[in-house]
Amino acid sequence: MNLLLLKRTELSDDSTLTLRDKRAEHLIRVLRVSSGDHVRVGLLNGPRGTGRVESVASDQVVLRCAFEDAPPPVSRLDLILALPRPKVMKRLWAQLAALGVGRIILTNAARVERNYFDTHVIDPDFYTPLLIEGLQQAQDTHLPEVSLQRRFKLLIEDDLATLSDAPLRFVAHPTAKTSVAEISHSASGRVLLAIGPEGGWVPFELELLAEHGFTAVHFGARTLRSDTACIAAIATVTQFLMP
Amino acid sequence: MNLLLLKRTELSDDSTLTLRDKRAEHLIRVLRVSSGDHVRVGLLNGPRGTGRVESVASDQVVLRCAFEDAPPPVSRLDLILALPRPKVMKRLWAQLAALGVGRIILTNAARVERNYFDTHVIDPDFYTPLLIEGLQQAQDTHLPEVSLQRRFKLLIEDDLATLSDAPLRFVAHPTAKTSVAEISHSASGRVLLAIGPEGGWVPFELELLAEHGFTAVHFGARTLRSDTACIAAIATVTQFLMP
Repeated sequence: MNLLLLKRTELSDDSTLTLRDKRAEHLIRVLRVSSGDHVRVGLLNGPRGTGRVESVASDQVVLRCAFEDAPPPVSRLDLILALPRPKVMKRLWAQLAALGVGRIILTNAARVERNYFDTHVIDPDFYTPLLIEGLQQAQDTHLPEVSLQRRFKLLIEDDLATLSDAPLRFVAHPTAKTSVAEISHSASGRVLLAIGPEGGWVPFELELLAEHGFTAVHFGARTLRSDTACIAAIATVTQFLMP
Repeated sequence: MNLLLLKRTELSDDSTLTLRDKRAEHLIRVLRVSSGDHVRVGLLNGPRGTGRVESVASDQVVLRCAFEDAPPPVSRLDLILALPRPKVMKRLWAQLAALGVGRIILTNAARVERNYFDTHVIDPDFYTPLLIEGLQQAQDTHLPEVSLQRRFKLLIEDDLATLSDAPLRFVAHPTAKTSVAEISHSASGRVLLAIGPEGGWVPFELELLAEHGFTAVHFGARTLRSDTACIAAIATVTQFLMP
């Protein structure tokens, strides 16, 4: 944990708060804080700052916090992700938040198994703590917004305009003619990246995406495990399209 | 498994082989092959090709193989990796092979815990099957060469010349002045990338690397989990320095 995330409602009027949950445990057992120490803190969806340890007891820590004026910059990447297997999705939540995705739009696709949608892994109670874990790792405060749209056509044709204002749209496709490296320095602005299911997008989906302004790009010739492919694609897009 | 890897010694003179191990089980239970089917095969460190299923019994499969003339291209990336926690290293093996690393040089660093070297995770009997799993995922046949050098100074000053012939050397460092995006299109050729421990390189290590031709580059402002950081760095370097 590189940043301790707090909710605004947890703070008292004098900017102190008393932690008694897992965060207190982490401060006591892992970071071994004592009175007078300072820890990096952040307000969920707000600014980062510093927390001064006022007191430590066996199971609670009192912090007095001071925050910066402005929150950290907002992510410039939104993601459409054809829902992967629950095991993979479970692994991805924290990493997506850590990599810095503004909005995560989960959707169906022809090659997504129907029963993937029955999993608790896409329940906000399950994934929110994982997203927060990723933010605390990356020292970010902006909780990614998550949407779920089971009807792909409806998503692309109707909902997308309100979900993401990114003017640059790319779809990851292994046999695309253009490599992500080739478009690197010509682009700037918010990016919406669409990543398909393990078996890839079907032609209908690629055509619909193309009609709605998505440029197909490939990320090299190698077939990666779907979570690795997702991390690799987000990392390269982040590095090269958002200088 | 996108490619079934075989050893040359497993093949009989008429290019057939009888599988009875986990690979047979995978062909029977997962791919549900029957006589006459074709599967993608590869010779470890050799060419890829096609295997025709000659017969299937309850626990064995007979394949007749035909191989391409030349092996797939060799990876152009070598990696120096300060040994991460065993749990992380365990997760990384298959992904390093899948991403395409020619040589993996594990080393010590000031911020590597000494007991990390006591783990079975760096035992060839443990990691070789994981590397093969990664190759089968990425349809590659070239088994990464693995070296372990516990003395960092000795590695950089003496051993490196024989371990990697990559003319381009980069070291990942979060506070480097240059972003990986800035060096992208000026470079070509084999690359040696050095990735430090979770807490980063210490000044002595960075100076020694600089003296030996390593340019420090950063991969963005976010602090990622060490396996995610490793995948992200390799993916961006592969995409942009090896067009």
